[in-house]
Amino acid sequence: MQPVMLADAAQADDLDPLRHLRERFVLPDGVIYLDGNSLGALPVGVAEAVDDAVRRQWGTDLVRSWTSAGWWEAPLRIGDRIASLVGAHPGSVVVSDSTSVDLFKLVVAGVRLSRARPGPRRTVIVVDDATFPTDRYIVDEAARLLGMQVRAAAPDDASSLDDQVALAVFCHVDFRTGVLYDLPAVTRALHEVGALALWDVCHSAGAVPIGLASAGVDLAVGCSYKYLNGGPGAPAWAYVAPALQGGIDSPLPGWNSHREPFGMQQVFAPVDGIGRLRTGTPPMLSMIALEAALAAFDGVRIEDVRRRSLELTALMIDAVDEYLADVVEVVTPRDPAGRGSQVSLRHPEAYPIVQALIERGVVGDFRAPDIIRLGLAPLYVSRQDVVLAVQALATVIGSEEFRAPRFSARATVT
Amino acid sequence: MQPVMLADAAQADDLDPLRHLRERFVLPDGVIYLDGNSLGALPVGVAEAVDDAVRRQWGTDLVRSWTSAGWWEAPLRIGDRIASLVGAHPGSVVVSDSTSVDLFKLVVAGVRLSRARPGPRRTVIVVDDATFPTDRYIVDEAARLLGMQVRAAAPDDASSLDDQVALAVFCHVDFRTGVLYDLPAVTRALHEVGALALWDVCHSAGAVPIGLASAGVDLAVGCSYKYLNGGPGAPAWAYVAPALQGGIDSPLPGWNSHREPFGMQQVFAPVDGIGRLRTGTPPMLSMIALEAALAAFDGVRIEDVRRRSLELTALMIDAVDEYLADVVEVVTPRDPAGRGSQVSLRHPEAYPIVQALIERGVVGDFRAPDIIRLGLAPLYVSRQDVVLAVQALATVIGSEEFRAPRFSARATVT
Repeated sequence: MQPVMLADAAQADDLDPLRHLRERFVLPDGVIYLDGNSLGALPVGVAEAVDDAVRRQWGTDLVRSWTSAGWWEAPLRIGDRIASLVGAHPGSVVVSDSTSVDLFKLVVAGVRLSRARPGPRRTVIVVDDATFPTDRYIVDEAARLLGMQVRAAAPDDASSLDDQVALAVFCHVDFRTGVLYDLPAVTRALHEVGALALWDVCHSAGAVPIGLASAGVDLAVGCSYKYLNGGPGAPAWAYVAPALQGGIDSPLPGWNSHREPFGMQQVFAPVDGIGRLRTGTPPMLSMIALEAALAAFDGVRIEDVRRRSLELTALMIDAVDEYLADVVEVVTPRDPAGRGSQVSLRHPEAYPIVQALIERGVVGDFRAPDIIRLGLAPLYVSRQDVVLAVQALATVIGSEEFRAPRFSARATVT
Repeated sequence: MQPVMLADAAQADDLDPLRHLRERFVLPDGVIYLDGNSLGALPVGVAEAVDDAVRRQWGTDLVRSWTSAGWWEAPLRIGDRIASLVGAHPGSVVVSDSTSVDLFKLVVAGVRLSRARPGPRRTVIVVDDATFPTDRYIVDEAARLLGMQVRAAAPDDASSLDDQVALAVFCHVDFRTGVLYDLPAVTRALHEVGALALWDVCHSAGAVPIGLASAGVDLAVGCSYKYLNGGPGAPAWAYVAPALQGGIDSPLPGWNSHREPFGMQQVFAPVDGIGRLRTGTPPMLSMIALEAALAAFDGVRIEDVRRRSLELTALMIDAVDEYLADVVEVVTPRDPAGRGSQVSLRHPEAYPIVQALIERGVVGDFRAPDIIRLGLAPLYVSRQDVVLAVQALATVIGSEEFRAPRFSARATVT
């Protein structure tokens, strides 16, 4: 049955209306890349854009490029491009700093927004108890500085919500399991108790329609180097609903967010709009790489990306059922509405298995303690990739080749 | 007398032991670049390094480059390179985020260090009252979150210091005037009242010997895109004296500063050493550009850089005295020990004058309200550049060409 399945996958690939998108990426030969949820692949055109930024914009035009090359406006310009992929209005997304730093700004600003509202002071920040660890560290620190309490809960645990909650920080997709939470419903539940919704959409942006505006999300933060393919450590982005922007009081104001950035005044006066979440001078080379990378989404509807993503994850789960039933546990929900664009498999030897898989050219990643995490970036992963990857995984496990000592030495891979 | 002066300058350039360093930069024809204190010029080799980072490290090796290309260690590795230029020991500098964000981490961590010491709680943060505005905004916000008072004072105003002061944030070189403060003496004065010294060395790093370790500085923050030539918005860096690192309690902890970054634990446990000031994933393309750029300093002693810097600034002041006496005011101190690597000139029409100068190919910058700021980056600015620039300035002012309407329209130039 194996050849049939691969042939079917090849045929379905040929018929896929998004098949041309793979050509927008530079993918190395001999590699099936299933770690685009950690570092997205390199889009075509990025190298040229960055080279131009270095040689012409920096080298020749020098400091004038802050105006002539549009560097100054880049955080808002690129923010608008990302906004179009996450269901946000223009002017509601700004590219800035790292996800962690943006999250800090938004948690503090969110608590201050809550405190500015009428009624008794709310004292609790709810945070996803399976969240990406940095989110928890940042929430803990913001709470410490603001005198708030932290309450850990799952996004779908309504019992955690009451009128003490100022703000909840939830992840749209769980980075370990791939569970996709019902963002509109959770947002509604938060609003019903008068709390603000702050979503971390790092693992959904670029793969799942998020609908920040239509769901009434208050605040959101996202990463640009996963499904958005912005490059290693690409600057992150922050979203604030337009109606809340006037009340944003950032704990990290900078001359980039001043109303008169070149006035060099000692008193801070924030600019109007989402730009008030800027802080210092952004890393322009990484910023320009991100902007060029986003061209991979030109003319692409995120709903079509989602359809393809679901076909890929469904195919992978089917293939695991066929090749690896009773060998690994499928952690990611089988219900399409409940999963993002990854498939997570549980196995006690997940770490050496992932290393052995990488040696076979199938790049996924490991998440402690026992998760094999396979990301299916819908713009460039094919159905054939999925089938070949699961076959390789079956071989690695079935042959026990993962038990070779070289696979158990720990290394740092994000 | 003009031709003599230029000829003398040319002769002195030929004899300068650092004259070969100019060849380490890609400088456009027809431009005298005196804005390296805003954005340093492009060093040779950076374009190639960045192209390799994009095409090979990202494009081909993909996520594995976090280990195979040394991305993970880059913030500390590059930090050590910067440490050698600012008089710091290895392991005491980390490259991370922007200057503003690093400053926030250090102000909060510094107040916490102070609070952990025996004795009554100190309630004041002193900040340079002419500081770069973002520094003030960040200090104000940190004070607001920590319940501290802010006291504005000049670094050399000893009357501002008493036993209420937890921490002082001072700029080594004033960005407007070019005044260089006596960092060792001010640090001693702070220590005498039991306060911590946090220095912003954005405008001295790479041009002036700073001696962070020998002066006993507690904390410092610096920029990488001015005299260090790291590229537009290059990541900034933070310094913590080795003896204080164990007590650093950062308000922006992240998985990058966790003791077990890949353990993905919900409880933060900081790594030992300067790495605990890391936060999120750094912008690697900008980071790699910075690392390549620092090669321009290979084999260069910062004391020799300083000697050349002082010769250049002295020559510029002499030339201004000759060509522009009574026309502009030299704001930068004539005492060599009291100035950094820029010459600031005051004129009520500074803005259009700078624009007219740029049109003549002499790129300096304007600082509100009336400062013509000319930065003399010692690695690539020559004595001939200095004389030609002052001659151009004399022409622009003498001919009144700066009064043309096109020069008075404001544009954003950092």
